[in-house]
Amino acid sequence: MDWKIRTSDRDVERISTRGNRFLVGNGYLGIRGTLEEYRKEQLPAVNLAGIFDQVGDSWREPLNAPNGLYTYVKVDGEAYGLPGQEPLEHEMVLDYRNALFSRKTSWKTGRGVVTVISERFASRAEVHLIGMKYTVTADFHADVELYTGIDGNVWEINGPHYRQMEAQVLENRAEITAITQEKGDTVTVMEAVCADFPHGSEGSWRNKEALHKYEFVTEPGRAYQIRKGIVVFTSKDAGWSKERAGQVLEEFSDSGYEAEKQKHRQAWEEKWRYGQVLVEGDDQAMEALNYSLYHLLSIAPAHAKSMSIPARGLSGQTYKGAVFWDTEMFMLDYFLFTDPAVARTLMKYRVDTLGGAKQKAAQYGWEGAYYAWESQEGGYDACTDYNVVDVFTGRPMRTFFRDKQYHISAAIVYGIMRYSHITGDDSLLKEGGLETVIECARFYYSLLLKRAGGTRYEIHDVIGPDEYHERVNNNAYTNRMAKYTFQMAVELLTGLDRFGDRVKESIEQQYRVPKLLEQFEDAAEHLYVPAPDEQGIIEQFDGYGNLEDVFVDQVRSRLLHEKEYWGGAYGVASQTKVIKQADVVTMLNLFSDEYPEDICLKNWKYYEPRTEHGSSLSACMYAMLACKCGMPREAYPFFVKSARADLNDGGKEWAGLIYIGGTHPAASGGAYMTAVEGFGGVSFTEGKLKVKPQLPENWKRMKFHICCGGKRYAVDIRPEETTVEEVEE
Amino acid sequence: MDWKIRTSDRDVERISTRGNRFLVGNGYLGIRGTLEEYRKEQLPAVNLAGIFDQVGDSWREPLNAPNGLYTYVKVDGEAYGLPGQEPLEHEMVLDYRNALFSRKTSWKTGRGVVTVISERFASRAEVHLIGMKYTVTADFHADVELYTGIDGNVWEINGPHYRQMEAQVLENRAEITAITQEKGDTVTVMEAVCADFPHGSEGSWRNKEALHKYEFVTEPGRAYQIRKGIVVFTSKDAGWSKERAGQVLEEFSDSGYEAEKQKHRQAWEEKWRYGQVLVEGDDQAMEALNYSLYHLLSIAPAHAKSMSIPARGLSGQTYKGAVFWDTEMFMLDYFLFTDPAVARTLMKYRVDTLGGAKQKAAQYGWEGAYYAWESQEGGYDACTDYNVVDVFTGRPMRTFFRDKQYHISAAIVYGIMRYSHITGDDSLLKEGGLETVIECARFYYSLLLKRAGGTRYEIHDVIGPDEYHERVNNNAYTNRMAKYTFQMAVELLTGLDRFGDRVKESIEQQYRVPKLLEQFEDAAEHLYVPAPDEQGIIEQFDGYGNLEDVFVDQVRSRLLHEKEYWGGAYGVASQTKVIKQADVVTMLNLFSDEYPEDICLKNWKYYEPRTEHGSSLSACMYAMLACKCGMPREAYPFFVKSARADLNDGGKEWAGLIYIGGTHPAASGGAYMTAVEGFGGVSFTEGKLKVKPQLPENWKRMKFHICCGGKRYAVDIRPEETTVEEVEE
Repeated sequence: MDWKIRTSDRDVERISTRGNRFLVGNGYLGIRGTLEEYRKEQLPAVNLAGIFDQVGDSWREPLNAPNGLYTYVKVDGEAYGLPGQEPLEHEMVLDYRNALFSRKTSWKTGRGVVTVISERFASRAEVHLIGMKYTVTADFHADVELYTGIDGNVWEINGPHYRQMEAQVLENRAEITAITQEKGDTVTVMEAVCADFPHGSEGSWRNKEALHKYEFVTEPGRAYQIRKGIVVFTSKDAGWSKERAGQVLEEFSDSGYEAEKQKHRQAWEEKWRYGQVLVEGDDQAMEALNYSLYHLLSIAPAHAKSMSIPARGLSGQTYKGAVFWDTEMFMLDYFLFTDPAVARTLMKYRVDTLGGAKQKAAQYGWEGAYYAWESQEGGYDACTDYNVVDVFTGRPMRTFFRDKQYHISAAIVYGIMRYSHITGDDSLLKEGGLETVIECARFYYSLLLKRAGGTRYEIHDVIGPDEYHERVNNNAYTNRMAKYTFQMAVELLTGLDRFGDRVKESIEQQYRVPKLLEQFEDAAEHLYVPAPDEQGIIEQFDGYGNLEDVFVDQVRSRLLHEKEYWGGAYGVASQTKVIKQADVVTMLNLFSDEYPEDICLKNWKYYEPRTEHGSSLSACMYAMLACKCGMPREAYPFFVKSARADLNDGGKEWAGLIYIGGTHPAASGGAYMTAVEGFGGVSFTEGKLKVKPQLPENWKRMKFHICCGGKRYAVDIRPEETTVEEVEE
Repeated sequence: MDWKIRTSDRDVERISTRGNRFLVGNGYLGIRGTLEEYRKEQLPAVNLAGIFDQVGDSWREPLNAPNGLYTYVKVDGEAYGLPGQEPLEHEMVLDYRNALFSRKTSWKTGRGVVTVISERFASRAEVHLIGMKYTVTADFHADVELYTGIDGNVWEINGPHYRQMEAQVLENRAEITAITQEKGDTVTVMEAVCADFPHGSEGSWRNKEALHKYEFVTEPGRAYQIRKGIVVFTSKDAGWSKERAGQVLEEFSDSGYEAEKQKHRQAWEEKWRYGQVLVEGDDQAMEALNYSLYHLLSIAPAHAKSMSIPARGLSGQTYKGAVFWDTEMFMLDYFLFTDPAVARTLMKYRVDTLGGAKQKAAQYGWEGAYYAWESQEGGYDACTDYNVVDVFTGRPMRTFFRDKQYHISAAIVYGIMRYSHITGDDSLLKEGGLETVIECARFYYSLLLKRAGGTRYEIHDVIGPDEYHERVNNNAYTNRMAKYTFQMAVELLTGLDRFGDRVKESIEQQYRVPKLLEQFEDAAEHLYVPAPDEQGIIEQFDGYGNLEDVFVDQVRSRLLHEKEYWGGAYGVASQTKVIKQADVVTMLNLFSDEYPEDICLKNWKYYEPRTEHGSSLSACMYAMLACKCGMPREAYPFFVKSARADLNDGGKEWAGLIYIGGTHPAASGGAYMTAVEGFGGVSFTEGKLKVKPQLPENWKRMKFHICCGGKRYAVDIRPEETTVEEVEE
């Protein structure tokens, strides 16, 4: 394997939507892998992390910056590009080892053949910097006009997000500063162009395009190249200004494209050193797996101290650029095991957005912290009450993701505690993590209900991971996660001494600790978690067993419209046992040590044919539980499905007129977890690393690194021997 | 006023659907006011009380008997009737004082004019007997063939209900015995014809028609008449057989039509003596009111000891012939005040179907007795989980009337206790009423929820009277009615002595009385009932105040399809404050003595513009509460709406291809309650009658009778004086 993916597909729509697949990013920004000549209709984007805007009542979503990559050529007065001119040849390559996107396209013109070659990277060494080179060659004396600059006509789903743009175009320099609608934030894009052409350029600013035009006549066979440095920063980036951006561009111009690229490659090599997973005997699996890790690395906020990852990464505005439970339950382990500082950054984001979670809880009349289902800045919940449109009436349908998907707060607790348990680092707990866990426990405590004369607590009217069944009582996953939250709060509150006097006193000042302890211990003990029935099956929620028992294909055959929603009150799945994604199986996977293996197996076999896997979060949970049941062979196809979530076609990318495609970093994280924790058998008991591998048949060897307890280990799994060695850094 | 309604409308479809309006009935059967020549396509029916059949998975519904009224004429070989021949003249009359239906229709034939006159009654003296006469006159020497007999082709909504029919046709006698699908019950219809014609008849049995054919030539101007006695009985009618039916027909033939009619009229006069309400100064109101009372009297099961009234009376198979809360909350008072034996029969039905209610509770995992939302024999709940069809997809929609309309059990308690309190008769309580109240209280107790650390009880996930808002928490009406149930149970359990040793011991053997008392007292004290907010408004349920605040017309303007359901998860009303019918207002009406008048008034004014009045149960609650707020003028239009529910056109009679029309006895009962309790100001305190009238402006005098505490009183209300005198019977 060469750590590259390629395509020669010329279909413009597919190139647009595969912008996800060929994405380059560095945690600060993501650049969709579309072509330089693309206009907003073809969905190019320089997608920014952590800055949002809302227009009117539309969904609040992240910003796409003005596109500094915008470049196209005219030959003999005619523009060549896609869409428009059918090429002779066309290829796009993503070198995901080095995070380099490149394309090569040739067209036959009236007088000969013209070829465009480009390359780009989102610098890992300086996350505000994008490097790009663009080369034109013709086999004849072509009259070339080369336009390059910054396109302020950005692709937006719920825009326009910029109420105003200011531009400046100088010789080989251009900049646009765009001002957002909601808060007046600014996004500045500056570029420096180095062109080795005979003549200078002509600058213009019209139609929101800040452009340089270079005109020249080609020598046949000679390559004409421009190299661009592009700097992007916003008014939310502390320490950034036009001056600083200008300096970065100066340096880029001085040292040159290749030198910056080299720094970028070195930074990536650093990441791969401990971030890669090597597999011998199954190149396809290794490729899909490391391609998944590439995506996780491309969106990791390594530059920040408190930031998380949107559910669709930095691939655009879909899912509102919001942070879901995907981060904690699916992506976190990769960073925790390979780059704990990033894991801390992810969890610090949650600790720092506790205020938003407390506000949300109060809004619904609950105590404590109810985290956003779709978290934006400050923990603001971008999720609306109407998330689905009825295909039959065109009306928005009332959904309950925001108000009743209570398991989100437990995911935060899970992330914080997993960080603390595996790293052994208490600093996150000391810096607000303790309060976060306590507030989440207070939230769940306020949800608890007891029947008159009853002894157990129940949680009613919820949505579990399977979103097709709304407003159910005693969802096994939700109740178990709430219980887990109580258990963790008790663990922390009974061990406050370990955090030192200052922290202990602060907690004791804020809370009546004995009272809380009494409540949480009572709750942990008496909260009802559905147990296996006589057949060993755990009922997903009260009454699930009475639903119509049909399989996925039967339910699918009842659709009247291919895009109709399966869930809600009247969806085809709603009154059946067919579920969207792993639910009980997710619970068993997280708490497998509490259940005999045969119970895990029976539930896996029961729920799998009833699961649509309509979410990319589903397959990896089935894969991992299969491993825990000693079935790596059964796990393998689910692993492949997770690992190839962004490589395969056929995903759902459009909902009516709304583009909902994007990368699936949770599936990437799920693939990693399956490989390392499932096949590799990595687990932790009291902070101690254990490795109990069970590789798929054709896997001859597997190598990776694991961080744990402040140390890093090299794990080498071979049929004859597994070695775990501490790595000196 | 002449106690008659008339129509000359010749529109066949309107005659068919107005079969409700011209209905005659006697509690055992109801005969839709359609024409003798009508076939099943024109919706004739002899609808039977208390016998049901189910075909496959279709709705279980009551039976229509083979139609013994079927009669038509041919003149000169051509059939004359509606539909078919356009008449010269046509009139239908219902004499509702005497419960006599008649019609007169003339047609112009090729040779002259032929006229048909008929009259029928469902005997009040002998409820199994129908009397009919049918007269043909021509103004020329017409060659007449007169066919009369029993039509086995019955109109059915979810049939065919008869798997087999046996018939016998003799000279002037015919009979059909039909056998039902589900249980093999039999329905027998026998007839005897007296014809004063020159020749005898020719009998036939084909196409499910048992027919006599009489042929004669008319003398111009002479009337040719047949008189028929028709007896209907089923295998569920104890003591009935063909022999007994034959005797009844013998007697009818001997004494004659007029003599039987006279007995029938006398029996009605008996009912009217104490059952009528006389109003001076407003003939239209008096007519509509007594027409309503006519309908209540026509369907009262005076012949039975334990039977109730379907929500659509005996007007057909709509609403499955099932008993709803309509009986207790809307119809009961009329019988309680005028004919307590019938009220006892109605409530005895509930006591006797306690077993069905206990089964239903157990099915849902509750304790005690959860009464059927749509009660058929034995308390079987005919309500299904899918009561509405989505007009956009044609799919059945999951509704929650059956499983979550918890207030039904409280309605039973209300009926039993009201019977007991007003009559002073403890026999119903002794004969199972006590257990019924206790089991209903046990049901509500099992519904109670308490939050962790909370002190109050709540009831979650219910549907209140306003069915447009599903699955709500703490519906004020439901919670107050549950509290009422606990209060009544406590009242009974603390006063067991009054029922005598035998009853007390029986109860103490069945129940741990001290434990129940403790539970019910605790529940009555701590069950949360939403209180008026700062503006004095009682929130209909938790979160109602946050719904979109629009009025009925705005919601109606959002309809995409005239027949779409307003409620459910996504209906146009569901996320708004628009409600189907009185809900908080019903609660205030029942418990008005617990709230200051200004609170009642504020809620009346708040909820009225937000109420669609999509149920015929709604208007009377607004009318009555308006009276309690001292606003008879505001009450009047709601009173008229209730009283004219079966007189006005424009009601909803078809849902797609399903006929859902029928009489509205709950509205009739509501009109009575408004007149007597609202305008008349009748109330009871500790079994003592109080009259505090506030008549509408143009009402000069109002006279009616009231039963109370085993005595009957004549009430005479005039502006200058109200008198209440005991009547010696």
